[in-house]
Amino acid sequence: MINKRNTQKSIKNMAFVLIEKEGKGSKLFNYSIVLLILINIAAIILESFQTLQDSYGSIFKLIEYTSVYLFSLEYILRLWVADLRYPNRSKWTSRLFFAITPMALIDLMAILPFYLPMLIPFDLRILRLLRVTRLIRIFKLNRYSKAFILLSNIIKRKKAELAVTIFTTLVLLLLASTLMYYIEGDVQPEAFPNIIASLWWAVATLTTVGYGDIYPITGLGRLLSGIIAVLGIGLVALPTGIISSGFMEEFSLNKVEEETVEELPRYCAHCGKGIVR
Amino acid sequence: MINKRNTQKSIKNMAFVLIEKEGKGSKLFNYSIVLLILINIAAIILESFQTLQDSYGSIFKLIEYTSVYLFSLEYILRLWVADLRYPNRSKWTSRLFFAITPMALIDLMAILPFYLPMLIPFDLRILRLLRVTRLIRIFKLNRYSKAFILLSNIIKRKKAELAVTIFTTLVLLLLASTLMYYIEGDVQPEAFPNIIASLWWAVATLTTVGYGDIYPITGLGRLLSGIIAVLGIGLVALPTGIISSGFMEEFSLNKVEEETVEELPRYCAHCGKGIVR
Amino acid sequence: MINKRNTQKSIKNMAFVLIEKEGKGSKLFNYSIVLLILINIAAIILESFQTLQDSYGSIFKLIEYTSVYLFSLEYILRLWVADLRYPNRSKWTSRLFFAITPMALIDLMAILPFYLPMLIPFDLRILRLLRVTRLIRIFKLNRYSKAFILLSNIIKRKKAELAVTIFTTLVLLLLASTLMYYIEGDVQPEAFPNIIASLWWAVATLTTVGYGDIYPITGLGRLLSGIIAVLGIGLVALPTGIISSGFMEEFSLNKVEEETVEELPRYCAHCGKGIVR
Amino acid sequence: MINKRNTQKSIKNMAFVLIEKEGKGSKLFNYSIVLLILINIAAIILESFQTLQDSYGSIFKLIEYTSVYLFSLEYILRLWVADLRYPNRSKWTSRLFFAITPMALIDLMAILPFYLPMLIPFDLRILRLLRVTRLIRIFKLNRYSKAFILLSNIIKRKKAELAVTIFTTLVLLLLASTLMYYIEGDVQPEAFPNIIASLWWAVATLTTVGYGDIYPITGLGRLLSGIIAVLGIGLVALPTGIISSGFMEEFSLNKVEEETVEELPRYCAHCGKGIVR
Repeated sequence: MINKRNTQKSIKNMAFVLIEKEGKGSKLFNYSIVLLILINIAAIILESFQTLQDSYGSIFKLIEYTSVYLFSLEYILRLWVADLRYPNRSKWTSRLFFAITPMALIDLMAILPFYLPMLIPFDLRILRLLRVTRLIRIFKLNRYSKAFILLSNIIKRKKAELAVTIFTTLVLLLLASTLMYYIEGDVQPEAFPNIIASLWWAVATLTTVGYGDIYPITGLGRLLSGIIAVLGIGLVALPTGIISSGFMEEFSLNKVEEETVEELPRYCAHCGKGIVR
Repeated sequence: MINKRNTQKSIKNMAFVLIEKEGKGSKLFNYSIVLLILINIAAIILESFQTLQDSYGSIFKLIEYTSVYLFSLEYILRLWVADLRYPNRSKWTSRLFFAITPMALIDLMAILPFYLPMLIPFDLRILRLLRVTRLIRIFKLNRYSKAFILLSNIIKRKKAELAVTIFTTLVLLLLASTLMYYIEGDVQPEAFPNIIASLWWAVATLTTVGYGDIYPITGLGRLLSGIIAVLGIGLVALPTGIISSGFMEEFSLNKVEEETVEELPRYCAHCGKGIVR
Repeated sequence: MINKRNTQKSIKNMAFVLIEKEGKGSKLFNYSIVLLILINIAAIILESFQTLQDSYGSIFKLIEYTSVYLFSLEYILRLWVADLRYPNRSKWTSRLFFAITPMALIDLMAILPFYLPMLIPFDLRILRLLRVTRLIRIFKLNRYSKAFILLSNIIKRKKAELAVTIFTTLVLLLLASTLMYYIEGDVQPEAFPNIIASLWWAVATLTTVGYGDIYPITGLGRLLSGIIAVLGIGLVALPTGIISSGFMEEFSLNKVEEETVEELPRYCAHCGKGIVR
Repeated sequence: MINKRNTQKSIKNMAFVLIEKEGKGSKLFNYSIVLLILINIAAIILESFQTLQDSYGSIFKLIEYTSVYLFSLEYILRLWVADLRYPNRSKWTSRLFFAITPMALIDLMAILPFYLPMLIPFDLRILRLLRVTRLIRIFKLNRYSKAFILLSNIIKRKKAELAVTIFTTLVLLLLASTLMYYIEGDVQPEAFPNIIASLWWAVATLTTVGYGDIYPITGLGRLLSGIIAVLGIGLVALPTGIISSGFMEEFSLNKVEEETVEELPRYCAHCGKGIVR
């Protein structure tokens, strides 16, 4: 009995090392998952071609079923070994802790849409939209990349400034689209029927996309459009400046730290005693 | 009599604390104002849909009347307690001082358009355009946010450089549109009938919006268009560089200040001699 | 005789102070020139409207004649007092020195097109194109602004890096347009008839203007277009980074200079003698 | 016999100096190559005009044959003197070493397409596409420019961060195009027939090119398009920030190095004690 439990424990330990620890085995395991995700993405793209869907529909079905099966297996495996992550917590508490981490939630969202239609009576069109969530599996790729961290740190540190930029953008969009609706609404009622339609123009102009499906034709409208387009350039300048300074601060802080460690004298040149800071 | 004046004074003090000082009560008051502004924005947007205007016109009317009433009340309240802001000035001088602050002027502009048509004989179309100013209420939101200050400080400090950029842009726009008018005016008289119409093309090209409603078709015109589009990229680079350096200077100045405060020791604590670095 | 020469000399001195030195009189003189330039620009723009040209043609003619007369007077005046600029040189050498400064050349180009048709037999259409140079008068405005100097200094210091960026852009444009011509030339012969037409598409895509008059329709063409558009974002990043660093270097150098002057000790704390650097 | 070998050796030495070392002769040689490349580019562009091809086809043929002959000669010459580059290696090892350098591979690719059709049975259309590689000769120009190095160093040093940006962009493009396909696919089946077509829209929007050939018309589609366009601005901000910081780090590192070289004195020149700062 004790022996059996020990064996089970050692299997679980091996699984934990395979999945979560760094090493040769874990590398193979993780690359297999990445490959499976890439196959999934390819299948989703190819499936969208009507002719390919007609000819190879069963293959796409097979890929989907297999990958959902394997992703489910991976999810259950990770949940099973989760108690080895937090040794100080009880088995089920640590599993709950793992289940609510963002990565585990994404993993769950990647497989859940497949099981839901089996449980509830469903509408085909809603099913189709749910399948989009399959793409969330791509984010799993990030899990394995570490270079992502620096960039996301900088964005996190500059959250407040970026939020103000986004808020200012929204205010600008609202002001521009309301003004444009009052200016062009009577002249082009089919292009600017309401403020929401006018917002579509404002976004396309402020971001300098300029599809060309809606644009002002009156003098006043064109003046407003020009001002918004020039402000759009300022809109590019703000986040760029924020992120540039974020990168530079990171570099500057690292340099200062390095200098503190390496360059400042540790002992007084006169008496030879340690310097008190 | 004295008692009554005292009571009035204490009520005014309470109102001042409620509106202008930080605290629990002021927070509730300010969030109510923000909520009212957001309801106003939603109403303006929804009202622009003809079908909604037809069905719920009276509700939109109610929202407008109520919010103008509440905004007016808030404005009068702020004006009333304004003398507590500048204790060294007389009652009416301090109220005038408050009334000409940018924030108070925006508050006034947000309610004035409603009262004006009641006083003067009016034209419906002008009224409609005046109502756009209702959106200025959005700026009130900024009053309560402090993160806005850093960004506006940087822009303020870099005012001179940004002004030169805008001036250069205007010169470039003028030169490009005049040249393009002389180049394409004869070939596409309906697209480039005069320099102002040509300016519309120049703005769309320099800001890289490119709606596609007007574009050159001659070789010379396309050459000019290409040069302007490439210069447009430089136009993005200039303000971005200016604002980036503004952020970095702010960071650099703060760092220097910080270093001065938690300064490194200049003398050895054991022998009192200067530390050699 | 001597008296007359002295009088003439003192008049010239007064004129020199009025035009070139800073002061009340010179301010008035310079602002008048700026005003004249602005009137000229307004006239050029308004004149381009056919209806205004028909009604007020004589007024535009009057403005043109008057301003060319006044600009000529200013040019001759500046040339006359030029010997006071370079006191160590002879009269005519210093005038020649002045005449070949960029500012003097621009001044000359602003008035020359008016006189040329009087000297040589001319074609009306060429005259029209020459008149565009009238806009060069705008650059005179810069002469009076000093804030322009910092920006132009940074661009001058970063000339080499910016030149490499422009060269890379040209190579990229050439490669992209040749490839696109070979890819789409057979499918859309009217949109991509030769590499020059294809270059027009390449510029519009790389600068992210995207007029929408020419775009690829084949899979390979769209792939190339996507790659070029993404590289276009890198194209924005390069000059922006260059100019950002230019601004930061300027700031950093100024700070170091300041620190050298203010913060480093000038005398040895032990013996009181000056520190040799 | 020995004399002949010596003569041959001295000729090879002269050729090596002419081609690879800096000096008057090498300058002339290299400028001739650059001129030849520019003539080639001009010929490729002019040749694409059907009318010029019809009239001057034989001249273009002559330019092509001559330049391929000269480029081949140059390639063989460089290969021949390659053993003088790596004196410690054997003749043929050093030639192989040279042949696999990127510059030599580009040189080979620039002439190879010309010889291949002579060896293998060929299809005219494939030949035409192969000829595009002729443009690779442009890259030879970079070989002679040194300013290129700083820029490519910075890009190389920031490779990891730029790669993450590109990866994030690809994920974003994939997510956006799949979502848009599910949203607009049924409403506009001719504009969004599959995810690849949808990807074309996503690239045009995220890079803010906005040709205007495909754009959403439903409310949900426009919301997604707006979000993608705003994220596109962030996409510009990331590489710009990365490259800005790269330039600044380069400057900062150079400055530190400089300071170390012309170091501030650490000891008083008069009394020999450490200087207190």
